[in-house]
Amino acid sequence: MSIKGNIIIGQSGGPTAVINSSLAGAIDAAKDAGVKKIYGMHYGIEGFLNEDIIDLRKHVKNSQDVSLLKRTPSAFLGSCRYKLPKIEGNEEVYEKIFSILEKYDIQYFLYNGGNDSMDTVKMLSDYAAAHGKTQRFMGIPKTIDNDLPVTDHCPGYGSAAKYIATSLKEIIADNDSYGPYRTSAVIVEIMGRHAGWLTAAAALANNSPDLIYLPEVDFDPDDFVKRVGELAKEKNSIVIAVSEGIKLADGRFVCELSGGSDRLDGFGHKQLSGVGAFLASLITEKTGVKARSIEFSTLQRCASHVVSRTDVDEAYNAGYLAAQKAFEGNTGEMITIKVESRRPYLVSYDSFDIHQVANVERKVPLEWIINDGTYVSDEFIEYARPLIMGQIEPYYSAGVPQHISLSKEGKE
Amino acid sequence: MSIKGNIIIGQSGGPTAVINSSLAGAIDAAKDAGVKKIYGMHYGIEGFLNEDIIDLRKHVKNSQDVSLLKRTPSAFLGSCRYKLPKIEGNEEVYEKIFSILEKYDIQYFLYNGGNDSMDTVKMLSDYAAAHGKTQRFMGIPKTIDNDLPVTDHCPGYGSAAKYIATSLKEIIADNDSYGPYRTSAVIVEIMGRHAGWLTAAAALANNSPDLIYLPEVDFDPDDFVKRVGELAKEKNSIVIAVSEGIKLADGRFVCELSGGSDRLDGFGHKQLSGVGAFLASLITEKTGVKARSIEFSTLQRCASHVVSRTDVDEAYNAGYLAAQKAFEGNTGEMITIKVESRRPYLVSYDSFDIHQVANVERKVPLEWIINDGTYVSDEFIEYARPLIMGQIEPYYSAGVPQHISLSKEGKE
Repeated sequence: MSIKGNIIIGQSGGPTAVINSSLAGAIDAAKDAGVKKIYGMHYGIEGFLNEDIIDLRKHVKNSQDVSLLKRTPSAFLGSCRYKLPKIEGNEEVYEKIFSILEKYDIQYFLYNGGNDSMDTVKMLSDYAAAHGKTQRFMGIPKTIDNDLPVTDHCPGYGSAAKYIATSLKEIIADNDSYGPYRTSAVIVEIMGRHAGWLTAAAALANNSPDLIYLPEVDFDPDDFVKRVGELAKEKNSIVIAVSEGIKLADGRFVCELSGGSDRLDGFGHKQLSGVGAFLASLITEKTGVKARSIEFSTLQRCASHVVSRTDVDEAYNAGYLAAQKAFEGNTGEMITIKVESRRPYLVSYDSFDIHQVANVERKVPLEWIINDGTYVSDEFIEYARPLIMGQIEPYYSAGVPQHISLSKEGKE
Repeated sequence: MSIKGNIIIGQSGGPTAVINSSLAGAIDAAKDAGVKKIYGMHYGIEGFLNEDIIDLRKHVKNSQDVSLLKRTPSAFLGSCRYKLPKIEGNEEVYEKIFSILEKYDIQYFLYNGGNDSMDTVKMLSDYAAAHGKTQRFMGIPKTIDNDLPVTDHCPGYGSAAKYIATSLKEIIADNDSYGPYRTSAVIVEIMGRHAGWLTAAAALANNSPDLIYLPEVDFDPDDFVKRVGELAKEKNSIVIAVSEGIKLADGRFVCELSGGSDRLDGFGHKQLSGVGAFLASLITEKTGVKARSIEFSTLQRCASHVVSRTDVDEAYNAGYLAAQKAFEGNTGEMITIKVESRRPYLVSYDSFDIHQVANVERKVPLEWIINDGTYVSDEFIEYARPLIMGQIEPYYSAGVPQHISLSKEGKE
């Protein structure tokens, strides 16, 4: 393995609690391989196009910084939601990217993100192949949604799932406070646009919610009301987990019934929210049971005070291996995790053709969704439990977790 | 000090992350004093009136159970939102309570709650005094709202404040992800009906929100929009903390403008919510800045995975001392915390006439609210910082925190 130039690493899409662990892994790999310049894209490919580039050796200096990086939420480098245009007709964008790469003698390009970000890796590696460019492009998987294909699961998911399971366990205990003297229902609205992985994680709470609704299965409001009514006859505390993305049989999002927002995000996807509040008022109206909703919102992806050790380690390894594979000559691939054994939990890593990864969404298998679409099976629990195991405690200072952030120095 | 009978402990009102630490303290005090029977009210005074009584020696057997109790959210005994009727004209309620006390030979009655619950202690001790009853009634302060008078602060507040500061720090980092490429505002809606203590805790996040609005000061929507517009010229990430209870100059809650709920809670207080969502849409409408809202909701009071060690210890001590003072003959009092020194942080405990505590709300001093009602001063930070110091890490099992709950056995 001979290193031929410098490396650059970018973060893209919505951050996760472990996106910076992948960055830490990539930096360590580059240091271990003796790469001279380790660059970071300030705000992903969007910042890169403006030549906003960071010298990471000046920001992540030692193992103490790496430890803090693993405990820091959000994207340390800054992120973007920017999709490269198709190559044909937009050659100037690609020429610009490659001219910047050449200017900084960057031979290794790592990009950490979800489906849309893997598309960036694909386009750049396609362009390089078509134009005889020597740079290597590798993708590091990252998404709390866990919807990337091929890999068993995605870094970022385990920590989000741990946050959801932990918080739900607390909410379920809390909602039970008044016992037989007050019946109350709580709808917990969980992220996941089209895939129910995050919402399914509600089942990991142990004391478990009563009903779990994923977007993979059509949602029937009448059946929902009937089930809640029946539950209210048996018990006083009802807790229900719903995905923000649940849909009616006619294809509309349930949150559209509620007058929920129909704004688009930066990638042009519909922004979903409001389904929890809508279902809570539906329950009260139709059954008389007092109901309210809780949205975990951004905390699902940024609560770095409760991360999964397994997830942090895997994110770090994925970052490290992406760099290592790039040094070995691989390009146009994404790092994947293969679970060799779930008990004991043993994994191996590989890399996979990015063309079969980019823009493909992997959903929860329908056979894992049980009880007429109102719960998840033991197969899901067996799948997900190892991913939330272990903790990394924050370093506290002044009573709150310490984070690391970019200093003013060290900008190129 | 001679023990003359049994003890009973009740939990009342909305739980906090440390209400069970006070219970643990009271149980330990009773065990240390050699009290024969240590009873718990199952669902507070409401359950007690139905003679729903728990033998706590069967549920909290050893120091391991005590350790778990300190890490368990919600009310271990079950809580209630039940206000005793006034004595005159309702003598039968009081006769019933005292007949149950006599039946179980209960001489010591401890009640852990906020303003409304301290009223219960007051009524019972008044009735006892008027009727020559020998039982002692002591209050243990508990409220995330921190609005009880006399005591420097209330057990429950420190942990809620730590949760708020920690989560806000993460949200602020997350909202900054896209830097100059996307301006976005987040409104974080925080509990606190009439007192701004919880919302003020946003200032403990260190990276700090841009604006903080407490219910102590009139809210001016036009000034708010103007300030956000000005912030949007200077920076891309705007984070604002608002109390659910902020009011217009005419006395209406801001959330009423939004069509927010006007349901009443069990004590007859208006349930507030929706102000965050309302202000987010106001920002987008008036300034064009993309805005969304996050509500911490119940997690503020039940997130026992991130508690303040200081708070846990003080809650435990307050429970312990309430029992000890009752054994010594005190009655009709609430335990109070006096801060002898803030640096280093040193406290002492006392007890205070419940008549001057019950139903009185303590607010954030107006001189601590600065910048025309949009921030809190360093005096607040000096006041609150020691209260969020230290951690008690959960015991994890299967990747989620372990809790203790009432088993089926041990019910009287």
